[in-house]
Amino acid sequence: MRDVDEAPECGVARFLVLLDGPWATLIVRELLHGPLRFTQIRDRLPGISAHTLTNRLRQFERNGLVTRTAYAEIPPRVVYELTEVGGQLRSVLDAMNSWALSVPPVSSSVP
Amino acid sequence: MRDVDEAPECGVARFLVLLDGPWATLIVRELLHGPLRFTQIRDRLPGISAHTLTNRLRQFERNGLVTRTAYAEIPPRVVYELTEVGGQLRSVLDAMNSWALSVPPVSSSVP
Repeated sequence: MRDVDEAPECGVARFLVLLDGPWATLIVRELLHGPLRFTQIRDRLPGISAHTLTNRLRQFERNGLVTRTAYAEIPPRVVYELTEVGGQLRSVLDAMNSWALSVPPVSSSVP
Repeated sequence: MRDVDEAPECGVARFLVLLDGPWATLIVRELLHGPLRFTQIRDRLPGISAHTLTNRLRQFERNGLVTRTAYAEIPPRVVYELTEVGGQLRSVLDAMNSWALSVPPVSSSVP
């Protein structure tokens, strides 16, 4: 996963760099519900490794899509939240969602 | 890359199954310009292997996103074209494009 500064000029290709791989989009889907702790995101995405989740969140932070806030509590609490530009991904995920739900099942066209 | 019948119920997750990996989306981007031959798609996507392109086109065909038309010419001509539902991906790619172009470069926030 590269950074936005190395991203290609075509917006679609830039998108694919910024949200590289299926987990990136699914993490955003969860964060669109509101701020979450690391373990909350992990629990909502069965199958994601801690390594992948850490990497994706760091990359999001570096590219200005997510903020990481550490609260000095006992035990310490770290919360991830979409920034304004990260939250604007809602329009992209809404478009993905509407389109995918409109795709007819393959079996309906098979005798 | 799985088929739409095995896809999860969440539209976003279904989208990620139907357009698995960056090449799938980039192939759609090219076909949104109009019908293309295999070699034309390959030439527009430097780095894609013939194997990957073949796989993606077959999967798109199976899921009803692309039609494959073979013309009985000499030499034979095979053309790939988005179906109606495939063409409706334009709204998703437009949303990706607009969003990605709105992301500020990382370097602007670094002293």
